[in-house]
Amino acid sequence: MPVPTHVKIVEVSPRDGLQNEKGFVPTDVKIELVNRLAAAGFPNVEATSFVSPKWVPQMADAAQVMAGIERRPGTIYSVLTPNMKGFEAALAAGADEVVIFGAASEAFSQKNINCSIAESIARFEPVAQAAKAAGVRLRGSISCALGCPYQGEVPVEAVVDVVKRYLALGCDEIDVADTIGVGTPKRVRQVMDAVTAVADPARISGHFHDTYGQALANITAALECGIAIFHTSVAGLGGCPYAKGATGNVATEDVLYLLRGMDIDTGVDFDAVVDIGQWMSRHLQRQSSSRAGNAIAAKRAA
Amino acid sequence: MPVPTHVKIVEVSPRDGLQNEKGFVPTDVKIELVNRLAAAGFPNVEATSFVSPKWVPQMADAAQVMAGIERRPGTIYSVLTPNMKGFEAALAAGADEVVIFGAASEAFSQKNINCSIAESIARFEPVAQAAKAAGVRLRGSISCALGCPYQGEVPVEAVVDVVKRYLALGCDEIDVADTIGVGTPKRVRQVMDAVTAVADPARISGHFHDTYGQALANITAALECGIAIFHTSVAGLGGCPYAKGATGNVATEDVLYLLRGMDIDTGVDFDAVVDIGQWMSRHLQRQSSSRAGNAIAAKRAA
Repeated sequence: MPVPTHVKIVEVSPRDGLQNEKGFVPTDVKIELVNRLAAAGFPNVEATSFVSPKWVPQMADAAQVMAGIERRPGTIYSVLTPNMKGFEAALAAGADEVVIFGAASEAFSQKNINCSIAESIARFEPVAQAAKAAGVRLRGSISCALGCPYQGEVPVEAVVDVVKRYLALGCDEIDVADTIGVGTPKRVRQVMDAVTAVADPARISGHFHDTYGQALANITAALECGIAIFHTSVAGLGGCPYAKGATGNVATEDVLYLLRGMDIDTGVDFDAVVDIGQWMSRHLQRQSSSRAGNAIAAKRAA
Repeated sequence: MPVPTHVKIVEVSPRDGLQNEKGFVPTDVKIELVNRLAAAGFPNVEATSFVSPKWVPQMADAAQVMAGIERRPGTIYSVLTPNMKGFEAALAAGADEVVIFGAASEAFSQKNINCSIAESIARFEPVAQAAKAAGVRLRGSISCALGCPYQGEVPVEAVVDVVKRYLALGCDEIDVADTIGVGTPKRVRQVMDAVTAVADPARISGHFHDTYGQALANITAALECGIAIFHTSVAGLGGCPYAKGATGNVATEDVLYLLRGMDIDTGVDFDAVVDIGQWMSRHLQRQSSSRAGNAIAAKRAA
């Protein structure tokens, strides 16, 4: 299959990138991050999460972030909504898209939320119905689609089953997420081929982590399966909660570099993204985990 | 084209990985590195370089390294030989393969050795003849095959021209090297397709740097062009002399993880390689730049 000529990048750093940060990132920094990403041309920014501050203290300022950002026309600002309480807050905050999330691994689902995959997704039914009624976009995320920290292998059929459940709930977009970064191109192809056999490829996104260095090879494989939406995080913000010190979300800069080399359009200003990555890394007082970002910063400094 | 079922990994860390280290790595550590890599199953280890110690002080102990290592039956121990003096020392040291090296970039050739590409390769004629006469394997390396720090773009025809010159010199193996890591899969395919149109794919290797995070995507593209030999460096040892602080050689662990996921055999003991990477990183007092290596080390520690 010819690779897509245009790719939509969903920039997840404000939510997925920051949610596990130990030190609280000031709300104004979060707002600046979202604004700069939108200004750089990302068509979709995952801005925050309307989750209980008991679970994710870093996202306690979700409403303030949403109230503080400039709303760029055409940009989709997504937020995570674990339940109706979160959805109502998201709706009040004017979110363009709400994200519901389940796993393809039974072990992961049981360990994290103490219920089966099927139960966990059924619980999202009210949120899905409310989103549809309110005319808000609905996205469903499938974690552990390429492997699980508890059960290891995840059957392709388990991923397809969650896709079907999300389609039944009316999801506009569905994320196939390699939460722990264990996937390799062959498996990515198997999963994406199976998923796109039951869902329009235009509605499927790839969310890859670079924990084992495989993310760009996996994205290339997914592109070859017709996938044209990818999640990335500037400077690779996010880390991996399942392996301390290991890499997490694939770095936006590395993905943009890849896509540019393949003549695939994203509408994003690459240089602006390198700046954002260096700025956020300085703010968090850590080395960026974007290889392209670091190489370009080193060249600029020379 | 179906990807190869077996890949030969040339482990270049003892030479390419260490040659730019500032602090002198003790000879016994170099010897242990070569021995452990050979014991882990690498069929080919780039052991050292018989180059003037004025140019590369880190390789001043080339003869001692070659004299000190255990010679594992079947393992090819390669060394770099810039001239006849180097070749004679390599022959005396019992090298199985000598490596000559030129660039595909005129600007790089002029800047580095003050002569044209054609002249630089003609100068290797005596070494090539002597290697053939002595029954020693001959490898030719093409730096800047995917881009140049001085001239930027490098024409595909320039790479093909060097390949032809190396074939005329009798090279058994020819390295297509992305010295500064700027390549992306589309360009890799163009170059590898052009190269394999004039040379047997079984004699071509891919030497990729991960400076922009593209190495694994590029290796996947090269595999799809029928390339079945790759150079890697444990823990990503080597850095990038053209961008301080940036990543250099692709990490062996990341490549092995990729290939294992593609069911491609290498004959290498992956766990042993992870150990070697962690050991060398401790010795050099630096974080490994292998993402797979770090993730596995973190999992082991947990």
